[in-house]
Amino acid sequence: MYRSRLEKNLDKHTLDYVSSISDDSEIALYDIIGSQAHSIMLYENNILSRAEVKKILSALEKIKKENLSAKSSAEDIHELIETLVIKKTGLEVGGKMHTARSRNDQVALDLRMKIRDDINVVCTCILDMVETLVVLAEKHTATAMPLYTHLQQAQIGTFSHFLISYSDALLRDFERLYDTFGRVNHSPLGAGPVGGTSLPINRNSTAKMLGFSGIVENSIDATSNRDVVAEYVGHIAILMTNLSRIAEDLVIWSTSEFSFVELSDQFSSPSSVMPQKKNPDILELTRGKTARVIGSLVAILSNLKGLASGYGRDLQEIKPSVFFSSRTAISALVVLNSMFATLKVNKQKMNQIADSGYLAALDIAEALVKEGLPFRSAHKIVGNLVHTAHESKISLSELTTSEVAKSVSSKEFDAKKLGKIISSINAESSLKNRSSLGSAGISEQKRLITKRKSKIKQYRNNITRRSAQISLAIERLSSNVRTLCR
Amino acid sequence: MYRSRLEKNLDKHTLDYVSSISDDSEIALYDIIGSQAHSIMLYENNILSRAEVKKILSALEKIKKENLSAKSSAEDIHELIETLVIKKTGLEVGGKMHTARSRNDQVALDLRMKIRDDINVVCTCILDMVETLVVLAEKHTATAMPLYTHLQQAQIGTFSHFLISYSDALLRDFERLYDTFGRVNHSPLGAGPVGGTSLPINRNSTAKMLGFSGIVENSIDATSNRDVVAEYVGHIAILMTNLSRIAEDLVIWSTSEFSFVELSDQFSSPSSVMPQKKNPDILELTRGKTARVIGSLVAILSNLKGLASGYGRDLQEIKPSVFFSSRTAISALVVLNSMFATLKVNKQKMNQIADSGYLAALDIAEALVKEGLPFRSAHKIVGNLVHTAHESKISLSELTTSEVAKSVSSKEFDAKKLGKIISSINAESSLKNRSSLGSAGISEQKRLITKRKSKIKQYRNNITRRSAQISLAIERLSSNVRTLCR
Amino acid sequence: MYRSRLEKNLDKHTLDYVSSISDDSEIALYDIIGSQAHSIMLYENNILSRAEVKKILSALEKIKKENLSAKSSAEDIHELIETLVIKKTGLEVGGKMHTARSRNDQVALDLRMKIRDDINVVCTCILDMVETLVVLAEKHTATAMPLYTHLQQAQIGTFSHFLISYSDALLRDFERLYDTFGRVNHSPLGAGPVGGTSLPINRNSTAKMLGFSGIVENSIDATSNRDVVAEYVGHIAILMTNLSRIAEDLVIWSTSEFSFVELSDQFSSPSSVMPQKKNPDILELTRGKTARVIGSLVAILSNLKGLASGYGRDLQEIKPSVFFSSRTAISALVVLNSMFATLKVNKQKMNQIADSGYLAALDIAEALVKEGLPFRSAHKIVGNLVHTAHESKISLSELTTSEVAKSVSSKEFDAKKLGKIISSINAESSLKNRSSLGSAGISEQKRLITKRKSKIKQYRNNITRRSAQISLAIERLSSNVRTLCR
Amino acid sequence: MYRSRLEKNLDKHTLDYVSSISDDSEIALYDIIGSQAHSIMLYENNILSRAEVKKILSALEKIKKENLSAKSSAEDIHELIETLVIKKTGLEVGGKMHTARSRNDQVALDLRMKIRDDINVVCTCILDMVETLVVLAEKHTATAMPLYTHLQQAQIGTFSHFLISYSDALLRDFERLYDTFGRVNHSPLGAGPVGGTSLPINRNSTAKMLGFSGIVENSIDATSNRDVVAEYVGHIAILMTNLSRIAEDLVIWSTSEFSFVELSDQFSSPSSVMPQKKNPDILELTRGKTARVIGSLVAILSNLKGLASGYGRDLQEIKPSVFFSSRTAISALVVLNSMFATLKVNKQKMNQIADSGYLAALDIAEALVKEGLPFRSAHKIVGNLVHTAHESKISLSELTTSEVAKSVSSKEFDAKKLGKIISSINAESSLKNRSSLGSAGISEQKRLITKRKSKIKQYRNNITRRSAQISLAIERLSSNVRTLCR
Repeated sequence: MYRSRLEKNLDKHTLDYVSSISDDSEIALYDIIGSQAHSIMLYENNILSRAEVKKILSALEKIKKENLSAKSSAEDIHELIETLVIKKTGLEVGGKMHTARSRNDQVALDLRMKIRDDINVVCTCILDMVETLVVLAEKHTATAMPLYTHLQQAQIGTFSHFLISYSDALLRDFERLYDTFGRVNHSPLGAGPVGGTSLPINRNSTAKMLGFSGIVENSIDATSNRDVVAEYVGHIAILMTNLSRIAEDLVIWSTSEFSFVELSDQFSSPSSVMPQKKNPDILELTRGKTARVIGSLVAILSNLKGLASGYGRDLQEIKPSVFFSSRTAISALVVLNSMFATLKVNKQKMNQIADSGYLAALDIAEALVKEGLPFRSAHKIVGNLVHTAHESKISLSELTTSEVAKSVSSKEFDAKKLGKIISSINAESSLKNRSSLGSAGISEQKRLITKRKSKIKQYRNNITRRSAQISLAIERLSSNVRTLCR
Repeated sequence: MYRSRLEKNLDKHTLDYVSSISDDSEIALYDIIGSQAHSIMLYENNILSRAEVKKILSALEKIKKENLSAKSSAEDIHELIETLVIKKTGLEVGGKMHTARSRNDQVALDLRMKIRDDINVVCTCILDMVETLVVLAEKHTATAMPLYTHLQQAQIGTFSHFLISYSDALLRDFERLYDTFGRVNHSPLGAGPVGGTSLPINRNSTAKMLGFSGIVENSIDATSNRDVVAEYVGHIAILMTNLSRIAEDLVIWSTSEFSFVELSDQFSSPSSVMPQKKNPDILELTRGKTARVIGSLVAILSNLKGLASGYGRDLQEIKPSVFFSSRTAISALVVLNSMFATLKVNKQKMNQIADSGYLAALDIAEALVKEGLPFRSAHKIVGNLVHTAHESKISLSELTTSEVAKSVSSKEFDAKKLGKIISSINAESSLKNRSSLGSAGISEQKRLITKRKSKIKQYRNNITRRSAQISLAIERLSSNVRTLCR
Repeated sequence: MYRSRLEKNLDKHTLDYVSSISDDSEIALYDIIGSQAHSIMLYENNILSRAEVKKILSALEKIKKENLSAKSSAEDIHELIETLVIKKTGLEVGGKMHTARSRNDQVALDLRMKIRDDINVVCTCILDMVETLVVLAEKHTATAMPLYTHLQQAQIGTFSHFLISYSDALLRDFERLYDTFGRVNHSPLGAGPVGGTSLPINRNSTAKMLGFSGIVENSIDATSNRDVVAEYVGHIAILMTNLSRIAEDLVIWSTSEFSFVELSDQFSSPSSVMPQKKNPDILELTRGKTARVIGSLVAILSNLKGLASGYGRDLQEIKPSVFFSSRTAISALVVLNSMFATLKVNKQKMNQIADSGYLAALDIAEALVKEGLPFRSAHKIVGNLVHTAHESKISLSELTTSEVAKSVSSKEFDAKKLGKIISSINAESSLKNRSSLGSAGISEQKRLITKRKSKIKQYRNNITRRSAQISLAIERLSSNVRTLCR
Repeated sequence: MYRSRLEKNLDKHTLDYVSSISDDSEIALYDIIGSQAHSIMLYENNILSRAEVKKILSALEKIKKENLSAKSSAEDIHELIETLVIKKTGLEVGGKMHTARSRNDQVALDLRMKIRDDINVVCTCILDMVETLVVLAEKHTATAMPLYTHLQQAQIGTFSHFLISYSDALLRDFERLYDTFGRVNHSPLGAGPVGGTSLPINRNSTAKMLGFSGIVENSIDATSNRDVVAEYVGHIAILMTNLSRIAEDLVIWSTSEFSFVELSDQFSSPSSVMPQKKNPDILELTRGKTARVIGSLVAILSNLKGLASGYGRDLQEIKPSVFFSSRTAISALVVLNSMFATLKVNKQKMNQIADSGYLAALDIAEALVKEGLPFRSAHKIVGNLVHTAHESKISLSELTTSEVAKSVSSKEFDAKKLGKIISSINAESSLKNRSSLGSAGISEQKRLITKRKSKIKQYRNNITRRSAQISLAIERLSSNVRTLCR
């Protein structure tokens, strides 16, 4: 439709190459709503008459209900919708809709409307999952479990402590996205192709109608920046990375060898050949999808690198990466949330491992520190104990007095007293004595859970308020449209 | 279908999350053909009877013609096709098709069949584009044009020299993919889920039926490696990078300021608001799509990093990145090929710029070297000449004798002689004298073009031979299927 | 030193492979200061005596002045410093320093101290560069210049409008980093290896001494999360991407063909062979370094993907990517800032191009809209005008009355009136009439500049206040150390 | 030195920003050798006299022995070496060395010389590691072990089968790099800055002197392509990915829960606080370093994307990514090789797990297939068996006759017979009966090992021959230099 100067139409292969129609279904509705706000503003500023705005708005309302995904020779959704409006209202009327704007500010607008909605959905899904984690944690504040570093058994801990560590990472993901929203929620509409317009438009008016908190002011910046988009996808990539780490923990804990947890059948996949298999495919897919979101971020940053100012068609290729990232994050959060809600926890196995092996080693060393030994010496003595026990393939509590005596010179520490210390420490005592802030001790678990519960509440209020502001604006606009269509 | 041990079906959201059905349309045909070869092998080894193989093959032939893209509750194409076969032939017969194989070797097979075909298509498209470039180069062996480094005018050159540099990069892309084919063209079929089978199968027989040159031997490796896939996408990413560099050159040369070339209308896009615009969108999209292919490569490598041996569902997420990369490379090659075939070259503007400014500076310095000056001194003298000319905003040939004299001390070189040298050098003489191997000189252009023409011929033979080998095998298999279906 | 249980020392090659000593020089000072705060806290809680804390603090003060970069067999800076303290104070005293902490919380602490300082430096450099841009913009509010989309001339604009668009992107970079600081500025110290401690420590006390606003509470999270680090490097990558786009604009504007700007000699590089060259290497390096920072981000995200909870040595490999990113961003900002401060702007060339070609096309179309034409019809008429002018290789203002008449049917618009409109529009009038918010019009430039000046001021106050809070805490700690060393 | 036209020196900060001196130490020797070959060629073509070439070669020989890493105000190694030669021989002589070449072809030369050497080293390290793996495999052809898919126990297998799967992946890495060598081993020297030279040089002569198999012909391509570099780093990234997967397997097998292997003390790291820990840090670092090599590849591809033809300074930033990748791959191979050579294998634990649980399920199903059941039915019956056993927390062999009868209807299969089949299958029988090509069966292990041994031999011959060709050329050049220096 725009090819006034150009003589030949696009070659067919080329049209396929340049068209973004199939991706654009994700922003079609935003494009229509944005066009309605723009048309009303044109009417407010006497660029459209009352009759003209009525026709255009009515046409847009009809298009809302049409199926736009059908194949079309339009290069993109913006051209398609304008063409349909002109078809319905004639060139004399519909030909005025695109006054004082351009596809460049329009697509920037659609993308921002899409992302701000996605942020609110993702943030809500995060809170839902955090809530599930905290509720599960509450049941397991006393479920002893080994903590790992380097995937080697490290210290005695609790299952709830793991679940809270997941919550805390996800709450930071919430905060990051919450901050990003503040930068996304500005309207680029009215920036025109790159340098604004000489027509008497009101950018603040469209911004307000669409629920934005302000405008992206400089018109070059408004049409060609995508740093806020990169920021959004970057934060989704970090969120996915956090989910992939949770997935990895659960993959390992689901092995026969660990047997700490078992996914419910609804969240497991069978093998096509091995009848015994119960595979944690959703966890593996979460890792695999994380890799693709990282790839999406690279696609965006590598796209933007070294791009000249002013809209370039390169930017079109950013859209599918954004849509994929949103879709993936939302479904991953929903699926993992349900998975946690139905997870079978093998408490007995966890407790048993927590009380075996050398997990109490650091507790013993700290007990020696309380007796006045320098930590470095205590570390060495307990190291010797472990060495001796490991050679005999026994646990620390099974060491005989003489074996204990072999590991410590009387000058260093009394062997008998050491023996007593060893036998006094087990998973239960360890978790009772562990009391430093944020530690895996039982008392801390309760405090941490209470604190997170109130945080969830507060964050939910914030996100609800924000969503409501947008909904309210869109509803007002809708009612305005209805009035003008009468 | 495989959920014998698992009690509950997958949660609906979860099914969406784990399903690869929509991506799998790209390998559906390969899955069917592979299943036919597998069934015939089972028959050859008395695992299927003549009647059974007939029923299975007939069912598969029918499925070939069905539309599999319809929504299904199958998790993937392998389950879907087996289910359909069982539906058509009964469990007693169809339930035998999956004997001695697994989805793990099956998907590895499909992917290798897909990639080897894609390689042949991409390689052919490369040769087509190289041929267009060489044909265009032949017309421009004497079209003088500035060569650039750092985007600054550097030396006098020819347009054909640029086109040949593009050809040479693309021919390396061909060679890379050609080498990769050798590693792709091995059959993983019969490796089973991870450790092979106790049934008397013949892996070499299926490999031969499907046109493979051998098998991926070790069964763990055959089912869980994807390094060959990463290699393929890596090479596609490099190819796209080469195309993106060509696109960048043409974007710059299409500016009003350079005006060296003009894309034909069929390959240009208009602006929705600025009536004068003729935008090189296909070039920009080529850059943008390159970024996405780089992202696809990252998605694959980041997926594989740290993955435990044995098939993991993470690998499923690799498929869409492969399909996207193939599709993008093929369409980019086709579109850019047509674009070059219809490109308007502004010979006059190129020649004019080549003969202006300071482009002859190195030629002058080399003329001084021929007079016995050390290059470093010649470089300094000509540097002074340029400095003087630049201050007066004139070209080197416009320098007066006294200005020349100011730039060189008589001790260094005779100013008059220098003046003569300057005036004797222009674009034409420069290109005549430039004769080093592979240089931009005119005589070299002809030699380089002839050489590339014969290379194209040879490479085309190679790729044709390879494609024919696969086609032949698939046709034989097809005829075999027909015979057994009678 | 820690190898109590392990019998053999690390193989030499292996030590090289695992050691991070050479990278750790960037955090050595933070490690010492963190150790001082930890020791004072141990003293406050009666784990160290007055005499012991004195010895340890004095030893650490001495180590501050030593050159730690010398080769060492320590695996990392934490081991090296503890070893040196024990050497200076004996095992009886120095062996107590590592009580109730681990290298896992220690390295997390050092990294957060390093990043929060880096954020403050980067933020200050951003403001410095924005100030330079705004000062330069002030001189060019009336310097007409073409605006580009797709690198094709689009609309008439001003040079200042470009400079302000750069400022606005950089101010968002500031805001992003400013938000990240809030998540970085929490202390992980005292989380121990993964699960906290049974010793009576005070995590809030060390946090306060080191100027943190709080603690990273959950001990698993505190030691093994790096999402905040990924967030920081992600934002640096976006900042670099913005700088790379500025660099691209200037590379293009510095070509002989554009000639809009000229870098001062101090910021240009010569060629080793072409005497006339003046290359914008710093701009190209900015693009190249951006690619490396994107690579650094990938290294971090790909590292974290699928990592099990609890510190893993994989995390060590994140440090060099962080250090490289900080260093690169700071130097890029400093160099580009100076480059802009000394940039020669070719105002005359800019103005000349702005007034030529078809840049006024949209202004003409908008003038027709003011006359009541639908924009889409106006777009088509002006498209025809451009087509006619382009065929004759003349500008729009050079069209004869009859040529104008050919482009518009009398039914559409009066040709004479159209001719008058065309001749009434030039760069000056266009920039005077362009008045939409954030447009390239002259009146907007002044408003935008004033607004940004006050924003710079406000942001500078914020960053100064923050830096001062950290400095104050560190100074207080320092004075505390001096008191205890007496 | 080259700033003849430019008046002011680089600003100090800017020099730091643009300088590559610190990275260039990796190519200093190649730059000197390349300069010697170039000088001899200039002498052969009468551009240098006998006396001049003698002086230049002698100066270069001296510089070889000097320490060039010292700080210098040179921007790069090429300028530094030319400056030193001029210092030693005077401008009259040394000023001639840079005749008919440029830093652009020079750095391309150095990089190719470096990479071809690196390829040979990496290839040799790969063969060393493969040899270690095969030697270890030979000891474990009958060591039963579970095979995993989705990290769930899948089939009974052998430890050697894993080791051979690692070998096979690494042998493909060898082949990839071996192919790349063929594209790397061409000389760009003499391409000049971008367009060649009018001086009578002989590019084939320098190529031969330096052991290249030919030249990179087109001069634009020779100086500005880096696709071969991307290909090399891409293949290193894939190699590292393969190593990271091996590392992951071993990390998991080293956990207390799996306990299949134990790293020797020399390759383990202790904890600074937990005395019992023995951490597989080298394995984790291998994963972490893999992420950085992936990042390096992204840095290169993202750098090249959209870069205009002709050398741009962006390319400088590619060098450190190449050097890091080579260094990392070599050290990872050396360290993992030694690690495998000293690995303690817990044969007993492996065997025990192989014989427990449900690992024989597929073997049982296949036995039913041999009895005539469709595989899909057999799969279902065994699925029921597993379900029953899992509910009672027993293994399949512990199922009572009545429990077996519950899992299969008499119509499907005789329960007694089924019971007999179950009890007849154990790890030993399973591995004896598994005989498909490339399966985990014992007989296959021996065949696979023999085949790989002969492959190693053949590949070693190939790599030795290649290295020898380069060495021979360099030695001849060296002797030539000595002769001319006399």
